Amino acid sequence: MIGERLARLALSQLGEPGDLRLTGLVAELGADLVHARILAGHNPQGLRDEMATRLEGIDPARDLDRAARQGIRWLVPGDAEWPAGLSDLDSSEPLQGMGRAPLGLWVRGPLRLDALPPPVAVVGSRSATTYGTGVASELGAGLARAGCTVVSGAAYGIDQAAHRGALAGAGPTVAVLACGVDRAYPRAHQALLDHLAQQGAVVSELAPGCAPTRPRFLARNRLIAAMSRGTVVVEAAVRSGALNTASWTARLNRPLMGVPGPVTSAPSEGVHELIRSGAATLVTRVDDVLELTGAMGEHLSEPLRAPTTSRDRLTASQRRVLEAVPLARPAPSDSIARTAGLGLVPVRSALEGLSRRGLVEQLPTGWRLAETADEG
Amino acid sequence: MIGERLARLALSQLGEPGDLRLTGLVAELGADLVHARILAGHNPQGLRDEMATRLEGIDPARDLDRAARQGIRWLVPGDAEWPAGLSDLDSSEPLQGMGRAPLGLWVRGPLRLDALPPPVAVVGSRSATTYGTGVASELGAGLARAGCTVVSGAAYGIDQAAHRGALAGAGPTVAVLACGVDRAYPRAHQALLDHLAQQGAVVSELAPGCAPTRPRFLARNRLIAAMSRGTVVVEAAVRSGALNTASWTARLNRPLMGVPGPVTSAPSEGVHELIRSGAATLVTRVDDVLELTGAMGEHLSEPLRAPTTSRDRLTASQRRVLEAVPLARPAPSDSIARTAGLGLVPVRSALEGLSRRGLVEQLPTGWRLAETADEG
Repeated sequence: MIGERLARLALSQLGEPGDLRLTGLVAELGADLVHARILAGHNPQGLRDEMATRLEGIDPARDLDRAARQGIRWLVPGDAEWPAGLSDLDSSEPLQGMGRAPLGLWVRGPLRLDALPPPVAVVGSRSATTYGTGVASELGAGLARAGCTVVSGAAYGIDQAAHRGALAGAGPTVAVLACGVDRAYPRAHQALLDHLAQQGAVVSELAPGCAPTRPRFLARNRLIAAMSRGTVVVEAAVRSGALNTASWTARLNRPLMGVPGPVTSAPSEGVHELIRSGAATLVTRVDDVLELTGAMGEHLSEPLRAPTTSRDRLTASQRRVLEAVPLARPAPSDSIARTAGLGLVPVRSALEGLSRRGLVEQLPTGWRLAETADEG
Repeated sequence: MIGERLARLALSQLGEPGDLRLTGLVAELGADLVHARILAGHNPQGLRDEMATRLEGIDPARDLDRAARQGIRWLVPGDAEWPAGLSDLDSSEPLQGMGRAPLGLWVRGPLRLDALPPPVAVVGSRSATTYGTGVASELGAGLARAGCTVVSGAAYGIDQAAHRGALAGAGPTVAVLACGVDRAYPRAHQALLDHLAQQGAVVSELAPGCAPTRPRFLARNRLIAAMSRGTVVVEAAVRSGALNTASWTARLNRPLMGVPGPVTSAPSEGVHELIRSGAATLVTRVDDVLELTGAMGEHLSEPLRAPTTSRDRLTASQRRVLEAVPLARPAPSDSIARTAGLGLVPVRSALEGLSRRGLVEQLPTGWRLAETADEG
């Protein structure tokens, strides 16, 4: 028996991320016992015998040492730093045969995962438009300035823009990877990932050195959703990995948000579908996200208000006269007085006041609304 | 006593559109009696005595004649052509002190209002963007081709684009005005309105010759909403007349729809707020609108489907192998076999099949996913 911590480390290298059978066994029996039984050749649930051989080749204490020398730590449930949100995965329905909280997490970087300022995921297409990356980077920066942590996947496009925005906003940001935290995927993001590892955190359930595969991306997406209070999808075409993160967010009953875009833009189609179907709430600005995720305590969006116009400061009789002034063909003041149901003298005085405010104009044949007046 | 038809025509020139008191009296007593009583100086509800004088100056039979010579007809409730949807206004809450069905409608143009193909309102900002007018005109054309009537207000911007789109799609379109149907407001739309009067219909509750005023626009908006099965808002800034039409649509319990746009575009802000608050449903294409308005009977949107990819046609073992192939650093086939949990021979054969389909590539050091493969 080697203890839960090392047993989880060893077992995590046996199965693929999101493997339900192995995590199910660990939940039932404890990692130490599962580890010992597999090594002993016991095979209570039909796990392949090959596993014993593979497990013998894994030296978790050596792996832990080696990682520590690279500045990489290993977290397991029960550790003070273990992110609380992950446990919701254990009570959620699997998706595409994957699910449950990971056996442990590898972390590189100074941010403590248990003390993150409110984490919000910002995800989207790798093939993003300049509109999308602009919005994601603004959103990342705004969330950072509002005191949130930006969580994403360090991919091309939206992910990258969200991380960079958070860094520009001098806020914490966390990348969750589908490969080891010592690797850069895509390779072009080596500098970004190094930067995140110095200032934020880079997280993975895969051991250092592991390569990304397609199912590992899907498994990774559940961690992005579960580590965050809510997920914002910025651009996502109809078949996009970001929609998988969206599904996990919905499955975890966390707020799912979508930023709309032009209906003529394919990368916005998936987001529009999420909003149309009611799965996601439309958001356009940082305050919307803060309100929905409760990331600022009782934060409430200020309702959008149009600027106060000169019309808002009129007297009651000026307003009444204004409503009787025609828009196009000028009318004489007696006709306006008749429409307004007011005497000629107060109407003339009101018209002059309105004219000073630039709301009406006098022409040779009478009065009409000034060009700039809004017809409502 | 002059009969309901002429009495309504006369009374409609006494009050402003949407006047609750006058229409309330008519609903209670009938137009003919209200007309007779006002003329006789009876003033049961505090209507001003000045009204008797004004009413004496109105000759409804002459007005009807004159309009008929201009090709303008006068409809009242009970006429076969009276649009059924208007009566819902009588059971709806007033908005900004206005409401109820109009006393009658002036109509110019060949379309019969009782036989309109499913009418759908398309409205939005006068100060629209090229994105907005492009979307409105596509939508107008698409609705026309799908067999709907496009209803709008003939204003600059979105309205104009929607009408023009419908004409381009060779479909019927109806303009509801805030002035007499013989007038062109804005003047620049004279040709458009003449065209609509020849091919579609131009409608107003204001008598020929009447000028547009601000409250007449608000009253007009309730008719656009009530004559249509649902309303699509394309672009609307926070203080926009189109949001008033939106409020009427919601008040009438008709489907309210909004087309999103870039969050960086002020004219889309009002629409985004409608969607965010749940007042409007996000729509991106004609089929969404048809589905929500039931404009094609049991019309149902086809769910958006991504095109079938070569990945969809793989065998189970090819799929399993593909999922074990790394994305970046190549892996030798024995390592892939281990990850996939399959023997070396079937793995090699699967890799070759995948390679022929362009999904994986072989490098000197092993296999990896081809550049074009989507990581999901």
